[in-house]
Amino acid sequence: MKVKRGLLIGRMQPVHNGHVEIIKKIFNLVDELIIGIGSGQISHEINNPFTAGERVLMLQNTLKETEIPSDSYYIIPIVDINNNSLWATHVESLIPEFNVVFSGNPLVKRLFKENNYDVKTPPLFDRTNLSGRKIRNKMVKGKNWQSCLPESVVKIIKEIDGINRLKEINKKEINE
Amino acid sequence: MKVKRGLLIGRMQPVHNGHVEIIKKIFNLVDELIIGIGSGQISHEINNPFTAGERVLMLQNTLKETEIPSDSYYIIPIVDINNNSLWATHVESLIPEFNVVFSGNPLVKRLFKENNYDVKTPPLFDRTNLSGRKIRNKMVKGKNWQSCLPESVVKIIKEIDGINRLKEINKKEINE
Amino acid sequence: MKVKRGLLIGRMQPVHNGHVEIIKKIFNLVDELIIGIGSGQISHEINNPFTAGERVLMLQNTLKETEIPSDSYYIIPIVDINNNSLWATHVESLIPEFNVVFSGNPLVKRLFKENNYDVKTPPLFDRTNLSGRKIRNKMVKGKNWQSCLPESVVKIIKEIDGINRLKEINKKEINE
Amino acid sequence: MKVKRGLLIGRMQPVHNGHVEIIKKIFNLVDELIIGIGSGQISHEINNPFTAGERVLMLQNTLKETEIPSDSYYIIPIVDINNNSLWATHVESLIPEFNVVFSGNPLVKRLFKENNYDVKTPPLFDRTNLSGRKIRNKMVKGKNWQSCLPESVVKIIKEIDGINRLKEINKKEINE
Amino acid sequence: MKVKRGLLIGRMQPVHNGHVEIIKKIFNLVDELIIGIGSGQISHEINNPFTAGERVLMLQNTLKETEIPSDSYYIIPIVDINNNSLWATHVESLIPEFNVVFSGNPLVKRLFKENNYDVKTPPLFDRTNLSGRKIRNKMVKGKNWQSCLPESVVKIIKEIDGINRLKEINKKEINE
Amino acid sequence: MKVKRGLLIGRMQPVHNGHVEIIKKIFNLVDELIIGIGSGQISHEINNPFTAGERVLMLQNTLKETEIPSDSYYIIPIVDINNNSLWATHVESLIPEFNVVFSGNPLVKRLFKENNYDVKTPPLFDRTNLSGRKIRNKMVKGKNWQSCLPESVVKIIKEIDGINRLKEINKKEINE
Repeated sequence: MKVKRGLLIGRMQPVHNGHVEIIKKIFNLVDELIIGIGSGQISHEINNPFTAGERVLMLQNTLKETEIPSDSYYIIPIVDINNNSLWATHVESLIPEFNVVFSGNPLVKRLFKENNYDVKTPPLFDRTNLSGRKIRNKMVKGKNWQSCLPESVVKIIKEIDGINRLKEINKKEINE
Repeated sequence: MKVKRGLLIGRMQPVHNGHVEIIKKIFNLVDELIIGIGSGQISHEINNPFTAGERVLMLQNTLKETEIPSDSYYIIPIVDINNNSLWATHVESLIPEFNVVFSGNPLVKRLFKENNYDVKTPPLFDRTNLSGRKIRNKMVKGKNWQSCLPESVVKIIKEIDGINRLKEINKKEINE
Repeated sequence: MKVKRGLLIGRMQPVHNGHVEIIKKIFNLVDELIIGIGSGQISHEINNPFTAGERVLMLQNTLKETEIPSDSYYIIPIVDINNNSLWATHVESLIPEFNVVFSGNPLVKRLFKENNYDVKTPPLFDRTNLSGRKIRNKMVKGKNWQSCLPESVVKIIKEIDGINRLKEINKKEINE
Repeated sequence: MKVKRGLLIGRMQPVHNGHVEIIKKIFNLVDELIIGIGSGQISHEINNPFTAGERVLMLQNTLKETEIPSDSYYIIPIVDINNNSLWATHVESLIPEFNVVFSGNPLVKRLFKENNYDVKTPPLFDRTNLSGRKIRNKMVKGKNWQSCLPESVVKIIKEIDGINRLKEINKKEINE
Repeated sequence: MKVKRGLLIGRMQPVHNGHVEIIKKIFNLVDELIIGIGSGQISHEINNPFTAGERVLMLQNTLKETEIPSDSYYIIPIVDINNNSLWATHVESLIPEFNVVFSGNPLVKRLFKENNYDVKTPPLFDRTNLSGRKIRNKMVKGKNWQSCLPESVVKIIKEIDGINRLKEINKKEINE
Repeated sequence: MKVKRGLLIGRMQPVHNGHVEIIKKIFNLVDELIIGIGSGQISHEINNPFTAGERVLMLQNTLKETEIPSDSYYIIPIVDINNNSLWATHVESLIPEFNVVFSGNPLVKRLFKENNYDVKTPPLFDRTNLSGRKIRNKMVKGKNWQSCLPESVVKIIKEIDGINRLKEINKKEINE
């Protein structure tokens, strides 16, 4: 395998400006990048509002407006397997071969290290404002979430009525 | 589909007087009612002490003593699927066709709305005293839980030694 | 447990006149009957065309037109568990307590015997004409399948476009 | 949703010239195409020798050498769910929204029709020589399989030692 | 890891004299041996009549009557995972580290080779008479199966009423 | 079944001196003991750092240095089934027949009681110092964990770089 191909995994709930920054910076280090959309089967939760398909669309629409060539990345949903011993091998089976992993998640780092991968901490971005949790919080509270997201993502969230989805599932249950 | 058939889903841990009140009131709005016993595969937990089969029996024995005709309801256990995108379709596959959903649970409401159902909040009942959590609490503490439940349910819980089950699984573990 | 409650399990693809005959005869032997709809999660296959929900509806609509009291039977979908050692316990967890099992399936008989149940072979009916496989065959070939089924079942199959479903999934694939 | 986005699902074991022909023709009918790699979790079988990741790579490497713009298709592994009632919804959750389905598989067609999609039979190609089964057969027997596959696929199969994999899993077991 | 530890995987339905022969011979090549009982979750089938627990007992009772030291082997049920890409890693997670695999199954051999193990074909034994399939056949037909099995296994099969289990599940179903 | 065979289930994360003490004392009450390694599929978590295979090895290496005869115990990983109604039957299917259960876990005790087993609380040991949670805590903080574990376990944890594994997965995630 001569190409230098990296792997970046994130839940991307939702895709935000920080992800785009990171991806651009990683492309200084690799020829191709596989972007795994983690917890692919989870949606309609406070911390995981969007489906894998919605997140794939957010990311592809965003990246196609950057200068990164579309044939140099792969966007692939990764469903959870709930077995840490198997997880890295599970990821390997779903995506093209790769030789470097970018992750800030200690468990992900450890699991790929135990599978003998070169694991790097991804480049930093403005973490004070850009974090999935903070952005979802703004969405629920009706604050300015749009400025944290690429335009294409804002558009998709509106089309799928995403803010209402988040607000509704955030309500308390009436009775049991 | 000419008949007006509703769906009510609840974990019913255990079936209590509030459930019976709601079901009676819903029958003013529908011809038939499907009652889905949620989290069907879960039992022997503090918040889910009874098996699906025990809850089916509680409900059928209770309803047969009301004036509701037995051939106008369906009691069906619904096992969890742990995938919100699939859950409403999963329920659809297990039960007869329906055209209105009654639920006080925000996620359930949202998921059926996204599947294009008419979703209504179920009629209110005395929620100060009647709530699954409060009743289970009384059972563990040996307080008067019987007054909150239909007689048939009290009888079943005694037959299956249900109070001891709840008390025992509530104990602390000795060592690890 | 004083009531004599039986269990009958069948895939009922579809519910046919033989099932009704059997159920009527079993009611000479029991007070109540649980009817488990087997392979509940399977549908849209040549040998399993109908969903659990469709089969529940077929059976309840059929039985409500017999003399059997509606509050003496339970109709419950049973999803497969693909583990024979656990299957009988899995069924036990989903349905009310029972004390006799009716089955013509050797594996079902053995598994419940190993769980210490009284297992009986169900009463016979006209097996020359009434068999799921033969009836599905007639449906695909456009022969007279209606005469083998209760009227309510014929009506449901028409409403859900069931014959076309069966015919379409029976076609050969064009290319791989 | 203004863009016309299609869905094509195939196991692509392996990606062959027929797939490329079909995809090119479908692009006369749609703006964007989602290509679902079916049975994503299955590999190392006679009829499913390659992993999802290997098939993603085959397809992306092949398509990037065509004139189809790389930002107009999505290549996404679809793991089986073994529940026909849920399958189309499962696919919907993993991929971007789409409005037309291309499939020659009768079950796939039926399932998407029941979910109210426009379903089309994909354009024809030379099916006498191009079929997954025939190509795998040639691989096992050492016949000229290379001429049926895009060059990039031939290269990948060599890199992963694919022919030996197929030949080895095709052997008989020595003893039980 | 200084000890030479081997892995042998078999379904052992049932444990027979051939298995004992092989295990003895393998101990000429290794210090310790892990014996994985394959398809651990499968039982009560014609080709898989015995539970994992029954097979563990058969094997331990048999081996303790040989000269092989009891502290040099590990008997561990391996449940199926139905994903060939993950299977070898799944086995690795359930058993102690090992450095050589013994298998006559082409898929098992290939999967462990792809995980970089040294894989050997196990030593031969009298395969004309000793094969799981042939022995199960003798059991069903009431022929002399006892001579193919270690005495401890014969005893266990009698205690669990194993022959009747096999004969009963081999019967035809009466009706559908 | 004439032999008195007990069952002890524990997660053993990791095997510590308390486990050895208990096992020795239980052997005063039984002829044979099955030791089930609970949550077998879980590893690489703060509270469950080690794989089933690593725990099997820890236990077998430890016990072979005691006076307990190696052919009188069975060490078997038990994967979780996440269904309390089925769990005791699931355990039964994976291990040899047994007639007494030792457990300090209230749920385990209840589930086996409902399956009609004789259930005993295991003999006590020095719980002030010996508890899985406390020992894992010492590992993370670099305190003297070695004194709580049998020598063989200390050796294995060093060989598999276990302390670093625990420390790494204990770190906070950088960004989402």
